[in-house]
Amino acid sequence: MSRWEPDARGRLERAALELYRERGFEQTTVAEIAARAGLTERTFFRHFADKREVLFGGAGQLQDLLVSTLASAPESAAPIDAVVGAFEAAARMFEERREYSGMRQATIAANADLQERELVKLATLSAALAGTLRQRGVAEPAASLAAEAGVTIFKIAFGLWVSETNQLTFVRLIQESLDELKAVTAGK
Amino acid sequence: MSRWEPDARGRLERAALELYRERGFEQTTVAEIAARAGLTERTFFRHFADKREVLFGGAGQLQDLLVSTLASAPESAAPIDAVVGAFEAAARMFEERREYSGMRQATIAANADLQERELVKLATLSAALAGTLRQRGVAEPAASLAAEAGVTIFKIAFGLWVSETNQLTFVRLIQESLDELKAVTAGK
Repeated sequence: MSRWEPDARGRLERAALELYRERGFEQTTVAEIAARAGLTERTFFRHFADKREVLFGGAGQLQDLLVSTLASAPESAAPIDAVVGAFEAAARMFEERREYSGMRQATIAANADLQERELVKLATLSAALAGTLRQRGVAEPAASLAAEAGVTIFKIAFGLWVSETNQLTFVRLIQESLDELKAVTAGK
Repeated sequence: MSRWEPDARGRLERAALELYRERGFEQTTVAEIAARAGLTERTFFRHFADKREVLFGGAGQLQDLLVSTLASAPESAAPIDAVVGAFEAAARMFEERREYSGMRQATIAANADLQERELVKLATLSAALAGTLRQRGVAEPAASLAAEAGVTIFKIAFGLWVSETNQLTFVRLIQESLDELKAVTAGK
């Protein structure tokens, strides 16, 4: 069997998410994921350290995209617009993976340990964005508030986007969530 | 003699926080906490399930206070003002425990597991507040956004309040953080 498997990573992700939905995350083994994908465990471990990393392996890439987009925003952009612009760039990357994202979300919602890991991921993202804003000359606490607001918008918009009744794009839902947060904080 | 309440629970809390600062959370045992407080391990376990609960035992009480204050806010209050009013009530309760709060914060900042637990606590608070807002007739996503904004304000204000250079009250810092968040989301 060739070391190179066409889209092995994608097949493993899909197999894992299906199994997590069918049996629960805890009950699923790496052997089962590999078998469902028609690949070996060895191949699984070439792509992922463990079955949890199937869900969180993209966190570093997401953070890099957010930070680099934020760092390259026009100097004149207000902090909140620069942060939300970065999340819109991320949302465009997610857009074609809505089904996968919904399955991932459902897996995480069903497991307390995974929820904790997701909270840590979002807190890490927020800290990285606040640091990038400070490098752009934004003072505290405005930098942390803008970063936290961005993460909140992303989280809320994500939940709406993966819901079964949703018809809108992720980018559009981020824009609407920003508008809603503006209204909410203005006391409306 | 300590400025703290002379009760067993207070003495155990203070002894624990001192030891967590001196040796680190991981390295501190319940036996050491009890000895430092001049009490027995038995007494410790009458007040706390384990050494982590010294740091998180107040979470339920805090949530109850926030939820009941929010639930009893005037019907005419905007969601953000009702939520922030609840956090101001909590801040008034914290106000005389600034030294303790700072030591607790430093302990948590030094330990990844405790940071996760703190994130879970805040996410649980946010969900409870969003639920209370929905009961007050606030629609989604406004309810979740207002709750998340409140938690963000509380978190940022808390960090400022326990910092060594701070001269302001916790309540005042919450009000200032709200003003700052309004300015940030308005794109200033």
